[in-house]
Amino acid sequence: MRTRQLSSAVLFAAVLASLVLQVGAAAHAGQVISPEVHPNLRVTFRLHAPRADRVEVSVQFAEDVQPMSKDNNGLWSITLGPAEPDIYVYSFIVDGLEITDPVNPIIKFWRTSKNLVEVPGEPPMFFQEQRVGHGVVHIHKYESRSLGVTRGLYVYTPPGYETSQNAQYPVLYLLHGMGDSEDTWTVVGRANVIADNLLAKNKARPLVIVMPYGHTPSAPPDSRSLDNYREFEKDLIEDVIPYVQERYRVSSDRKDRAIAGLSMGGGQALTVGLGNLELFGWVGAFSSAIPRGKKLDDLLAEPKLMNKKLDLLWVGCGRKDFLFDANKKFLETLKTKKVKHVAHITDGAHDWRIWRRYLNEFVPLLFKADK
Amino acid sequence: MRTRQLSSAVLFAAVLASLVLQVGAAAHAGQVISPEVHPNLRVTFRLHAPRADRVEVSVQFAEDVQPMSKDNNGLWSITLGPAEPDIYVYSFIVDGLEITDPVNPIIKFWRTSKNLVEVPGEPPMFFQEQRVGHGVVHIHKYESRSLGVTRGLYVYTPPGYETSQNAQYPVLYLLHGMGDSEDTWTVVGRANVIADNLLAKNKARPLVIVMPYGHTPSAPPDSRSLDNYREFEKDLIEDVIPYVQERYRVSSDRKDRAIAGLSMGGGQALTVGLGNLELFGWVGAFSSAIPRGKKLDDLLAEPKLMNKKLDLLWVGCGRKDFLFDANKKFLETLKTKKVKHVAHITDGAHDWRIWRRYLNEFVPLLFKADK
Repeated sequence: MRTRQLSSAVLFAAVLASLVLQVGAAAHAGQVISPEVHPNLRVTFRLHAPRADRVEVSVQFAEDVQPMSKDNNGLWSITLGPAEPDIYVYSFIVDGLEITDPVNPIIKFWRTSKNLVEVPGEPPMFFQEQRVGHGVVHIHKYESRSLGVTRGLYVYTPPGYETSQNAQYPVLYLLHGMGDSEDTWTVVGRANVIADNLLAKNKARPLVIVMPYGHTPSAPPDSRSLDNYREFEKDLIEDVIPYVQERYRVSSDRKDRAIAGLSMGGGQALTVGLGNLELFGWVGAFSSAIPRGKKLDDLLAEPKLMNKKLDLLWVGCGRKDFLFDANKKFLETLKTKKVKHVAHITDGAHDWRIWRRYLNEFVPLLFKADK
Repeated sequence: MRTRQLSSAVLFAAVLASLVLQVGAAAHAGQVISPEVHPNLRVTFRLHAPRADRVEVSVQFAEDVQPMSKDNNGLWSITLGPAEPDIYVYSFIVDGLEITDPVNPIIKFWRTSKNLVEVPGEPPMFFQEQRVGHGVVHIHKYESRSLGVTRGLYVYTPPGYETSQNAQYPVLYLLHGMGDSEDTWTVVGRANVIADNLLAKNKARPLVIVMPYGHTPSAPPDSRSLDNYREFEKDLIEDVIPYVQERYRVSSDRKDRAIAGLSMGGGQALTVGLGNLELFGWVGAFSSAIPRGKKLDDLLAEPKLMNKKLDLLWVGCGRKDFLFDANKKFLETLKTKKVKHVAHITDGAHDWRIWRRYLNEFVPLLFKADK
């Protein structure tokens, strides 16, 4: 949210960057290039701050914060890495104040703005925009009658959707985390790019992805409350799904409808998905806030019915995630109750690097003809 | 570009802000609220920077930069205005370094990031998101065969487009300025919101708005070159228009096709529009980089043919615009050559506050049955 995806401007900035390097011209104050990713996967960060006493960079692929050096023109810089191909969050710290990189338009907003830097792979990674067929991302505003407010909604349609006359597509409802918005799964999560790449390799069935807004009036993004599940469920079922079905060629069969989410959205996916087996055949929970107490007991009250109806219950979590213990306990409960599921325990923490991977692993499993 | 539009998260942040004020709680470091627009149209800016010696705000509705004051918790603040209802650019200056407001996700990127603050009107202004029918903004990536690259493309469809079976809609090709991208007209210019509001008041014909990317490989966004018109024209006519016509129910009649743009995009609109009268019936030039020399002579070579074919040539410019003299001279040339046109000289400079207004004034003139 909060920012656009890698756009043509950035691609051209990269081209320009390489030209500047080829002619050996030094970046000056007026045209600082930052970040610059080198072919050897090292990354140079630059900031023009002639009056600062100390400038550091905080980036996910380096330990702690790293002090930058100043040249005679007041340009601070540092080269770090090499980094594994991935998308990393970073920010500058200028005399103790955390700021964004002013010349990098790729911003991830979560309570505050930070920047993203993409380190590409060879062959290209699953999250990289490649020269394949591209789906379309649709930005909607709809009236939620159940909540009495106007809300945002993003919808991805796969390559060929507009020109094909295919009757029906399967649909994934994909939910964001606390503090995020309806655009976070595309802008930060690259859900559209990941889907494009999977489809180009024939690794998944062409699908529509619906990304609603997960906060509700009683649990706004700055609250710490997760108590919005009932409101969210009502909005999704009474407003979002009918709105989507009126406008897109999506199947209304539960075997063609999936729900998944991360963190708070994982808790919503479990609550709404397992609580409405007549609507959803496929449920994915990424690093989830697991429902607790009676709510959880109710969801898991009929294991036999769940096993009969549910095509997939997929639970992923990283070992360093602060929600790991809760997810482990949930997986043990599923085992005890003999609920069929896929446990996907991985490295990593509560972090978009994990969620992009989970989406890339989850989507190919969906909408198979047989369980 | 570079940022999302006012999203649900921001609306909730505003709700939260008012709650915080109601209970009299002071904003602390962890939950700074900035900017805060008061009912009296004054605006409070806040930044938590305990180690800074001097913090200022630069905002379009105040003269110069304004020094902010620090409280005991290191929270700097200032209240300015009242401001006329509008959307203003602002940034903070911390010990001489210009930075964005870290807690405001609404960012305008143009070479560097700055923030936007919306001061609402009563009744609501034409650029404010209101409770009316909302069109859809579609984010495309297409292969430009003429340029050999993948490019971004935004398309607005009006309320009702998806559910109506209307055969054909008129279409406006809307071009951005130098250094902008395909998303700038929606994210910064609010073209979709402006169209929604016009349509809700029945002030315009329902239309599709196509917003292509205006830079080309030989004139990337960081160049100062305007010499991309030929490449842009080729891409628009050979790639963009066919791509749009294949996917959207748009008329291919020149009387239903308009082209307009701002600054560099105004120069492109004049070049492509006046140079292809068989394709475009309506041309708008906002604060334009006017074509010069032989190029201009060629465009205006046949005034009688232009007057016969062209439904509208609309030229707008602000008196404080650095391009005002060039636009005045262009208008004089049109007069001398007896080319029918509308001259729209206004207050203001080279600035989005003007371009939003121009769009709001231009769209209602389009696609009338008779000249």
